[in-house]
Amino acid sequence: MKAMNVGLLGIGTVGGGTFSVLKRNSEEITRRAGRPIEITVVADKNLELARKVTGGACRLTDDAFSVVTDPDVDIVIELIGGYGIARELVLKAIENGKHVVTANKALLAKHGNEIFDAAQKKGVMVAFEAAVAGGIPIIKALREGLTANRIEWIAGIINGTTNFILTEMREKGLPFDVVLKEAQRLGYAEADPTFDVEGIDAAHKLSIMSAIAFGNRVSFDQASVEGITKLEAVDIKYAEQLGYRIKLLGITKRMPEGVELRVHPTLIPSKRLIANVEGAMNAVLAKGDAVGATLYYGKGAGAEPTASAVIADLVDVTRMHTSDPENRVPHLAFQPDAVVDLPILPLAEVVTSYYLRLRVEDKPGVLADITRILADHQISIDAMFQREPAEGEDQADIIMLTHQTKEKNIDAAIASINALSVVTGKTIRLRMESLL
Amino acid sequence: MKAMNVGLLGIGTVGGGTFSVLKRNSEEITRRAGRPIEITVVADKNLELARKVTGGACRLTDDAFSVVTDPDVDIVIELIGGYGIARELVLKAIENGKHVVTANKALLAKHGNEIFDAAQKKGVMVAFEAAVAGGIPIIKALREGLTANRIEWIAGIINGTTNFILTEMREKGLPFDVVLKEAQRLGYAEADPTFDVEGIDAAHKLSIMSAIAFGNRVSFDQASVEGITKLEAVDIKYAEQLGYRIKLLGITKRMPEGVELRVHPTLIPSKRLIANVEGAMNAVLAKGDAVGATLYYGKGAGAEPTASAVIADLVDVTRMHTSDPENRVPHLAFQPDAVVDLPILPLAEVVTSYYLRLRVEDKPGVLADITRILADHQISIDAMFQREPAEGEDQADIIMLTHQTKEKNIDAAIASINALSVVTGKTIRLRMESLL
Repeated sequence: MKAMNVGLLGIGTVGGGTFSVLKRNSEEITRRAGRPIEITVVADKNLELARKVTGGACRLTDDAFSVVTDPDVDIVIELIGGYGIARELVLKAIENGKHVVTANKALLAKHGNEIFDAAQKKGVMVAFEAAVAGGIPIIKALREGLTANRIEWIAGIINGTTNFILTEMREKGLPFDVVLKEAQRLGYAEADPTFDVEGIDAAHKLSIMSAIAFGNRVSFDQASVEGITKLEAVDIKYAEQLGYRIKLLGITKRMPEGVELRVHPTLIPSKRLIANVEGAMNAVLAKGDAVGATLYYGKGAGAEPTASAVIADLVDVTRMHTSDPENRVPHLAFQPDAVVDLPILPLAEVVTSYYLRLRVEDKPGVLADITRILADHQISIDAMFQREPAEGEDQADIIMLTHQTKEKNIDAAIASINALSVVTGKTIRLRMESLL
Repeated sequence: MKAMNVGLLGIGTVGGGTFSVLKRNSEEITRRAGRPIEITVVADKNLELARKVTGGACRLTDDAFSVVTDPDVDIVIELIGGYGIARELVLKAIENGKHVVTANKALLAKHGNEIFDAAQKKGVMVAFEAAVAGGIPIIKALREGLTANRIEWIAGIINGTTNFILTEMREKGLPFDVVLKEAQRLGYAEADPTFDVEGIDAAHKLSIMSAIAFGNRVSFDQASVEGITKLEAVDIKYAEQLGYRIKLLGITKRMPEGVELRVHPTLIPSKRLIANVEGAMNAVLAKGDAVGATLYYGKGAGAEPTASAVIADLVDVTRMHTSDPENRVPHLAFQPDAVVDLPILPLAEVVTSYYLRLRVEDKPGVLADITRILADHQISIDAMFQREPAEGEDQADIIMLTHQTKEKNIDAAIASINALSVVTGKTIRLRMESLL
């Protein structure tokens, strides 16, 4: 059967991985897809690199726009990244009737609605398995595997850099700054780590998963995002003593009033499987009303794991390109006319339980003052312990776990607590999830 | 759009779950599938039960053959089980141009090749997500999510009954018989638990996964199967002391000489995520050459988790039924003309490492005799410890972990060891896997 012709935009890490996996496994992939899938043209500004990676096996150009308008190209793989030129190229490819495969989470988080609308109108597919959790087929699982379910929530470790850092902080008891430098040295973190450590990359991925889980428009701009830069090793240690691990989770929940969409460090029970996902690995836990909790685990980044997802999309597109567009898997899992615009809840309205660490003077009545304030805000305490001052100190740490409450209640209570003269440091507040 | 009409055969646990989930989530499922999916007729010998479960919402019959020949039925769900009448009904449905969705692992393990051939000839789909690991979308992950990969091996906890029993044996230190009775009392094991505890159910599921992973014919009849009935609590304890857990794993590996296809209790490192899958939960670990190891976890049985998979298949069939058969996902993941007949390796040829427990007289020279025999068979020792005899006893336990060797070597060595006069009990041998 006639080969599918693919134009590849960007021959960096993932592009190189895609090229080499597609070549190495071409026989097996053809046996699955029913026809060869061939990269016939590669566009990259760095033609020398492109020549080195491809070994002259296909046409090269430094003009990506010539690829997205090339009548001989069936599918365009966009691996340029960012949301400037990538957006233009993807829209131009769609306009020219090309199917698109992309790993670009930032682009879809920012411009997904526009891109999916354009693809829908043109009757082409935009596939994006590689945009979330690398090689883990999580988009397929959510969009096709759990179609029977009313999905209730998703919680994911979807950024390998931060999970690596948190694992090292816990295992070695080291502060964030030290571990970040180590991660940079080992190549787990970039020179400018902002996107990863501030939770933005996780929020990009989360907002895509949230949309396909709930049949909602992509709502990245309304996500609440908090990274791990302010997290202290001492809280990781206290959490562990209480039977919890701290993970940077992307959490999205369907509530009666709207959708929660938030990324932040989170205490989760150590005995949960996802709490034991360590190092740079990713995992997504999805709860459906029929299936219960399911978990998907694997490598969330890297050349070949990401290439695995890119190529799975190529095979899917190859299989579906002749079917009528109405019967294809919809971009956002729900039919375009059934996608709704559920409100995203502000953090103040989120209901969860909390970990508090208070630094107080070690004298009588302190605990009574604090628990009185919590009671006044309808916050009840689930567990508590006090770390007595060391020899020569006169300040103690009080660690509390609360039952569920609205975030605005806990914040009001903390403001009152911080105003007490016996409270000598800023109270640390972390969110907790039971993930049941 | 016109509804898809579904005929349901068997309204037991999973049938009832399918009926109620499809009803409860019909709005959300329609928003995904693009058209309603309706169970229009139910066949069951027990008409009273059928009436109670369906509440008169659809036509009932006690003649399943009338459903598979009904011109108004688009899709038949087979939930009768077994491979007698179920095989006849599925083949008759295919003959009549119906698509089939089934949860029947025994049927597909025994007659999958015949059934898929018939479906292929007729241009209809036989979908079977529910046949393996209940609600976990593992068939979809293997067949569509990992298409870029040369899959190297799969290892799965794919029987909830035995995983529940092993978890209880480890946590409570109880023997198999006692825990089995408890599992039966709690409904985790059937009155006749043979299929589960002897590993046959796991082998059914494994042989289906093996076929779609490697593009091989379904080869259940050549699987090597060993259950957990002879497993002793003391070995679970020793394994734990050495940093391992014992799980009943279904393992299939692609080797240069053929395919390993085996179910048996297996020591795996406690720190692996899959070692921490407890109770009746299922998990499948799949290793691809590009993606690395990925894990899929969830409920492997029960009314609604299994219904989740059945309905996901209904949605898939609804989406794909208008597409040309050549472009659908092939039944066995590979195109029919690309499915091969790789040899299944006998256990004697399997290469793995081993846990040995020897009962010996506590006197000088014993260890020298044993290690000499192992060395003569080219088996090297990775770790060893000796449990000294208790007060008043004169026999000691020696526990050894070996490096990798062929099973026929270890068996020959054990025969020689058992012949030593200082060895007073039958040597226990368990297989180990590093799962890396």
